Amino acid sequence: MFEREELIRFAHCDPAGIVFYPQYFVLLNGLVEDWFTDGLGVDSAELVTVRKMGTPTARMDCTFSRPSRLGDRLVLGLTVTKIGNSAIDLDVQGRVGDEIRLKARQTLVVCCLETMKSVPIPPEIRTGLARYCRDGCSSEEKV
Amino acid sequence: MFEREELIRFAHCDPAGIVFYPQYFVLLNGLVEDWFTDGLGVDSAELVTVRKMGTPTARMDCTFSRPSRLGDRLVLGLTVTKIGNSAIDLDVQGRVGDEIRLKARQTLVVCCLETMKSVPIPPEIRTGLARYCRDGCSSEEKV
Amino acid sequence: MFEREELIRFAHCDPAGIVFYPQYFVLLNGLVEDWFTDGLGVDSAELVTVRKMGTPTARMDCTFSRPSRLGDRLVLGLTVTKIGNSAIDLDVQGRVGDEIRLKARQTLVVCCLETMKSVPIPPEIRTGLARYCRDGCSSEEKV
Amino acid sequence: MFEREELIRFAHCDPAGIVFYPQYFVLLNGLVEDWFTDGLGVDSAELVTVRKMGTPTARMDCTFSRPSRLGDRLVLGLTVTKIGNSAIDLDVQGRVGDEIRLKARQTLVVCCLETMKSVPIPPEIRTGLARYCRDGCSSEEKV
Repeated sequence: MFEREELIRFAHCDPAGIVFYPQYFVLLNGLVEDWFTDGLGVDSAELVTVRKMGTPTARMDCTFSRPSRLGDRLVLGLTVTKIGNSAIDLDVQGRVGDEIRLKARQTLVVCCLETMKSVPIPPEIRTGLARYCRDGCSSEEKV
Repeated sequence: MFEREELIRFAHCDPAGIVFYPQYFVLLNGLVEDWFTDGLGVDSAELVTVRKMGTPTARMDCTFSRPSRLGDRLVLGLTVTKIGNSAIDLDVQGRVGDEIRLKARQTLVVCCLETMKSVPIPPEIRTGLARYCRDGCSSEEKV
Repeated sequence: MFEREELIRFAHCDPAGIVFYPQYFVLLNGLVEDWFTDGLGVDSAELVTVRKMGTPTARMDCTFSRPSRLGDRLVLGLTVTKIGNSAIDLDVQGRVGDEIRLKARQTLVVCCLETMKSVPIPPEIRTGLARYCRDGCSSEEKV
Repeated sequence: MFEREELIRFAHCDPAGIVFYPQYFVLLNGLVEDWFTDGLGVDSAELVTVRKMGTPTARMDCTFSRPSRLGDRLVLGLTVTKIGNSAIDLDVQGRVGDEIRLKARQTLVVCCLETMKSVPIPPEIRTGLARYCRDGCSSEEKV
């Protein structure tokens, strides 16, 4: 599992004093960026700006079980559950201490940002993904 | 179906020139606000500030089928699929013309914002919900 | 003066129940977009996507005199105070009814988005600007 | 000077591939939070949630001299220039390496979040501020 801790800031919170749910997705986007750079060894900024590739989200299925509050230290983590030709399925969770705040299943699709068409997962990313696969993770690659 | 058109603005778009997916959820939150105020006849600001009630999202399962771009006129719409004691299940979609951009199933839970505990759906909201129920919508209410 | 009314939404507000100040700038950016499209007759989305021109903010000097709250109807307005070769100076204000919430002086610079270099204000924009000039507005154009 | 480095992320950038200016203010808000917690020794989350005090921005005068891009490591820093009874004036800057990206003068006002009225700067905050005063910084306190 790739994990990062994020401080819940004033900017994340709504008038109810809890994280406004779209802000969780901003945080999860940062988690994926850090995972590419630090976990997969593929600089996420360079991927976008130099290689003109991105990983837009094709599906996000997220359950929010408990609210998070200003000052919480939210630990976000992800594992890979399925590797397709262009798509990467993730299990994502957010917790504070042992308390789960959210669980999500997310599908990323590797795309060319100029055409917005999916492209095969580049080999060096595919190699890196294996390290974050949980048991039973399936992998397909068109030949 | 309750519908609203939203202009895709510069602030919604990312370096790929398409809507950054968390921004869709900001727009969907606005849709629910407008639906309460204009569709259900329950002022969404007053609900929060005077009655100290809110409708946090317990689950969001969203599939993004096509990207949206700066200047698109995104039509967001929702129908009710299930009414629980505190929970409201919605089918949500976003389209530009006839092209679907996103489809989502969302669960809102009516909560007291001071305790963050779920509360029964207030009667006048429950009454309004019926108008947005699609065929087969189920409704439960604890007695 | 070019004016637009914006509803203060849940997404704009912070744990203090008032507009989080960076959200005012998101709203002001939308004001400038609408002004280009509806006031100057230059579609702001097309300007960016087709003509590859933008109007980044070079300076923003904003005083927030009173907080705005969920449900407020904030009327944002702008006038032009100075027209340079590439730069446009604006006076911006936000009010709810007669109560001023913010006053700002903003400098936009017309840029080519591919080089991020300033370019002369295109003639059809320059012509439109004149309609929004307040008394004493100066205009310069390099020949 | 209190300094923090922030990675410029995908979420901060606009279709021009540069930081969308309201996002700078989200980052500056985080800088002030970290400064309170780590620089002044006053936990910024506790200040809001327990002591019901906040530091809304009364004025922000910011000049953006050069754009920042995805992957930039933006170093944000602040010093105190004036300490009033309730108001704190800051000089803020953002740079990448030696290149200045923004310079700002910001006025914070210590407020009670329940009344939104200004309150005198609490003594332990006032004491901490002295460490971040630049030469010529003035300090007033009503007696």
